[in-house]
Amino acid sequence: MRAESHDPLQDSAFAQLYAQVQQFYARHLQVLDSGSATAWAETFAEDGSLDLPGAAEPVRGRAAIVESMSRSAAAFAAAGETRRHWHGMLDVTERLDGSIGVRCYALVFRTVRDNPSTLHRVCVCEDVLVREDGVLKVRTRRVTRDDSH
Amino acid sequence: MRAESHDPLQDSAFAQLYAQVQQFYARHLQVLDSGSATAWAETFAEDGSLDLPGAAEPVRGRAAIVESMSRSAAAFAAAGETRRHWHGMLDVTERLDGSIGVRCYALVFRTVRDNPSTLHRVCVCEDVLVREDGVLKVRTRRVTRDDSH
Amino acid sequence: MRAESHDPLQDSAFAQLYAQVQQFYARHLQVLDSGSATAWAETFAEDGSLDLPGAAEPVRGRAAIVESMSRSAAAFAAAGETRRHWHGMLDVTERLDGSIGVRCYALVFRTVRDNPSTLHRVCVCEDVLVREDGVLKVRTRRVTRDDSH
Repeated sequence: MRAESHDPLQDSAFAQLYAQVQQFYARHLQVLDSGSATAWAETFAEDGSLDLPGAAEPVRGRAAIVESMSRSAAAFAAAGETRRHWHGMLDVTERLDGSIGVRCYALVFRTVRDNPSTLHRVCVCEDVLVREDGVLKVRTRRVTRDDSH
Repeated sequence: MRAESHDPLQDSAFAQLYAQVQQFYARHLQVLDSGSATAWAETFAEDGSLDLPGAAEPVRGRAAIVESMSRSAAAFAAAGETRRHWHGMLDVTERLDGSIGVRCYALVFRTVRDNPSTLHRVCVCEDVLVREDGVLKVRTRRVTRDDSH
Repeated sequence: MRAESHDPLQDSAFAQLYAQVQQFYARHLQVLDSGSATAWAETFAEDGSLDLPGAAEPVRGRAAIVESMSRSAAAFAAAGETRRHWHGMLDVTERLDGSIGVRCYALVFRTVRDNPSTLHRVCVCEDVLVREDGVLKVRTRRVTRDDSH
C-alpha cells in the first residue's frame, strides 16, 4: 500500500474536507432555492464569478450576483415555480494554493405549483472554492448543460 | 480564519457526524424501499413521528409506523411497483440538546414492473435525529412536496 | 450508548472510509461518462468483474472491460448521447477480509444532443471494493434494473 494513501492524518484531513464541502453545497443550494439573493451572494467570495450556460459572460462580484439572482427569483415566484438544485458525484481536490477544486454533476428539478415535478437539467459544475475567515465560498463556477454543448 | 472553523477536533467530529448521518439515511431508505415494516419502524425512536404530505395528522410511535408502512408495502407489491427514496443536500446541525437537525431534499423514483422508471416526487424533509444506545434514529420527520404546498 | 458506536477511533475510521468511497465513486463515474475506456478499466481490480442487466454473463478482467466500454462509448458518441451515472444512498460495510461492501442506488441520466435530458434508469448496485496499492478498485459489481427483474 502506498504511504500517502494510508497516512491517517491525511486520510482524516480528506474526510474533514469532503464533509465540509458536502455541507457547504447543501446549505448553498438550499439558500439558492429559497430565493434569498443576499444570502446566496454571501456564499460566493467577494470577487466570485459564476459562468452559467447561455449567458454572454460570467456574472462577477457579489453585487452582480445579487442582481442576477433577484431577477430569477422574481420570475420563479411570479410563475409559481420551485427549483431544486442537487450537486453530486463530487470529485474534490486540494490545490497547491490552498483552494479546493470540485468537479461535480448537477441536477435541476422544476415544479410549477399543482403540476408534477420534473427533471429540468443535467449539468456539469466546475468550482474553485476558497476559505474566507475559515468559511468555504465559491470563487469561480463554470456550469455546462448536457443538452446544449 | 476563525478558530472555530479550524479546531481539528471539531472538524473531525463534524466529519464523523456527517458520515454517520449519510450512512444512516442509506440504510434507513433501503429498508423503507425493501418493504420491511418492522425493520423500518426500528429506525425511528420509540416515540418517533412521521408527518407526511396529505396525511390528516402525523403517524406517531413504532406500532403506528409499522401499520402504516405495511399498508403501503402491500399496495406497492400488489401493483408491481418499486419506489426508491433518495435524500440529498443534507444540511446537518448539532443542537444544544444533543439531537441532530437535518434539512434535506428528498426524491422519490417509481417503477411499475416492465415500465420505464419515473421521477415521482420532489420533496423537502426536515428531521430531528437522536441516538438510542448510540444508534441514530428519527425522532421527528416532516416532509413537504414541491407540487402541493 | 454502546461502546462500539462511540469509540472515537472507530468513528473516525468510518468517516475516512465513507469519504474515500464517495470520492472513489465520483471519479469512477465521471471517468465512465467521459468515455475513457482504459481509465475506466483501471478503476477495477485486475480480475474485476461487472455483472450488468441484460448481459448473458459478467464481463471479467480489465481487457474485457476496456473492450465492452469502448463499444458502448463509440455507440454513444455516434448517437450524440451523453450519460451521467449517479450512485447514492451508499450503505458501506467493512468486511472481515478487509474488502468493502457497498449496496447503493444508481441513477442513469441520458441526453441526446439538442434534446431534453431524461431519467434513463433506476438501478441497485452491489459492489465489493478492494485496495490495490492503497487505491480503491471495484472487484465485483452486480447491477439490477428496477424496470426488469
